[in-house]
Amino acid sequence: MSAQTVGGGTFAVGVDIGGTTIKAGAVTTGGVVSGEVVVPSRAEEGPEEVLSQAAGAVRSVLSATGGGGGTCTGVGVGIPGIVSTADGLVRYPPNFQDWAEVDVSGELARRTGMRVRTENDANTAALAEAKFGAGVNHRDFVFVIWGTGVGGGLILDGKIFRGPGGGAGEIGHVTIDRQGPPCNCGNRGCVEAYIGQKYLSQRTAKLVGGKDAAAEGSVMMKLAGGDLSTLDPAMISRAAELGDEAATRVLTEAGAMLGVALASVVNVVDIPTVIIGGGISAAPEFVFRAAADEMRARVLRPHRDAVSVSRALLGNTAGVIGAASLLF
Amino acid sequence: MSAQTVGGGTFAVGVDIGGTTIKAGAVTTGGVVSGEVVVPSRAEEGPEEVLSQAAGAVRSVLSATGGGGGTCTGVGVGIPGIVSTADGLVRYPPNFQDWAEVDVSGELARRTGMRVRTENDANTAALAEAKFGAGVNHRDFVFVIWGTGVGGGLILDGKIFRGPGGGAGEIGHVTIDRQGPPCNCGNRGCVEAYIGQKYLSQRTAKLVGGKDAAAEGSVMMKLAGGDLSTLDPAMISRAAELGDEAATRVLTEAGAMLGVALASVVNVVDIPTVIIGGGISAAPEFVFRAAADEMRARVLRPHRDAVSVSRALLGNTAGVIGAASLLF
Repeated sequence: MSAQTVGGGTFAVGVDIGGTTIKAGAVTTGGVVSGEVVVPSRAEEGPEEVLSQAAGAVRSVLSATGGGGGTCTGVGVGIPGIVSTADGLVRYPPNFQDWAEVDVSGELARRTGMRVRTENDANTAALAEAKFGAGVNHRDFVFVIWGTGVGGGLILDGKIFRGPGGGAGEIGHVTIDRQGPPCNCGNRGCVEAYIGQKYLSQRTAKLVGGKDAAAEGSVMMKLAGGDLSTLDPAMISRAAELGDEAATRVLTEAGAMLGVALASVVNVVDIPTVIIGGGISAAPEFVFRAAADEMRARVLRPHRDAVSVSRALLGNTAGVIGAASLLF
Repeated sequence: MSAQTVGGGTFAVGVDIGGTTIKAGAVTTGGVVSGEVVVPSRAEEGPEEVLSQAAGAVRSVLSATGGGGGTCTGVGVGIPGIVSTADGLVRYPPNFQDWAEVDVSGELARRTGMRVRTENDANTAALAEAKFGAGVNHRDFVFVIWGTGVGGGLILDGKIFRGPGGGAGEIGHVTIDRQGPPCNCGNRGCVEAYIGQKYLSQRTAKLVGGKDAAAEGSVMMKLAGGDLSTLDPAMISRAAELGDEAATRVLTEAGAMLGVALASVVNVVDIPTVIIGGGISAAPEFVFRAAADEMRARVLRPHRDAVSVSRALLGNTAGVIGAASLLF
């Protein structure tokens, strides 16, 4: 095990392995990030390549921060898929090729010579918000990452609630209509099938495209560079912020649909505080209000007054911060 | 605090307070019940009357079992509604008149002179199955009570998972269709609104009543004493056991609808083992199979092989046994 330094204090390297990018950075015990590295993920080339990229990112961070005199306590990894606490295996991360079960901690420890801990990426982001973000005043909250898909994590008594198999918190795959549209996961009517990027963009494009005259000069068309198929939740959020009517309508509906799923979650786990991160966390307040209103109308009576929905505060760096904090 | 005896060993008195009956009994640490008392509940007369009935039931049990030389460790109570572990208050038990928040443990301790612990009744039944019933080989399971309504409890690492506010496990109020029929709870499309007694009976009556000639001689009509509006889940289960086609169809559909809700639950808490109690636990195997098949088709891939649905083993006495076991 090697010791590295950053600004004289204790730190860990956080690695956020995604299907699109791999991010890494040195994170102090106070949650301050330095020496950040972002590389495009080669998830389509299989686990060996991804592990090699992650090890490279760790080395880059350490060489960027090596002169400060601090002590590195190890490497924390956030990655999609179910991470089993029993055997440490990362199972079936969606959008990663040829990946059934991989011992990420073991493989990365071998490649870096450092102590490594691995956790589901929604859980690491939730942990970051719990320790340094929107969750610092809440012992318990439901964390939602709403972007390309809809992920989530449960924070219970300040810690990640993993469930017995490590797969808890998949808020995106709560059914809101048993006969609804097919979801990527194989189920139908999951909330992700209504508010994930693909469906949200289609719905917005349909609304904007339906009004030909207006579409030409619409904020949305400009933000999408003339091609509505490239719309993502962040663009739709910005359009809504700029007062675009279609964007406002789509996001209000989507917020309410998330509220339906969250009401089921609250009735099952009794955690009425919700924090929403991901691309949508830049959306105007009315989206969070729509989710909260729908939840309040649907949860069991004793939960009603306790319902709150707020936006995450750490943005894109939540994954790196939370992964590193696995070592604190 | 008084000490009472039963068969020479340690025991506790379990009290199962329901909207219809109040049951009580002496329960040994081995889960054996004696001195049982069942009285019609006067829930419509308010908390004072219910507490007085419960205290009376405890006294009856103790006088029935007082000669055996054992040691009574206290009284455990199961009751509908949310039971807060922080302040011990029982909040809004459905079907109990004039009941907002009552300190059942404190009030009953005052009336009986014994140590009292109180828990939600679905949780106590779940605990009984965990310690002495269908759950003895499972550290984690989702417990469903399917009868008049649909209740539930989560057993995690052998213990009740209450959630931060004590209200976790309300499986019956998981939405399966956001635009579905209104539920008693104020939400719409809850699974209880599809498979609770009222809706199940209506559906069955409609199917049986729809075939006039067949209806006359149907098993269901006989079991219902000629009045289909009196059908309950236990009757429908018996009719299905006897091969009745309408009953079989209704229960298969209902099992699948429960499976939709359970799939959402598994994706959120990662507990793929389900045990079903309540009136429906007497139903033929195909009901449990229908629920399991639907769950398996809908849960996230890593949960699929682990899904299991089985029937509870303790029947009506689960509530008394589990309540008493709060003292063990």
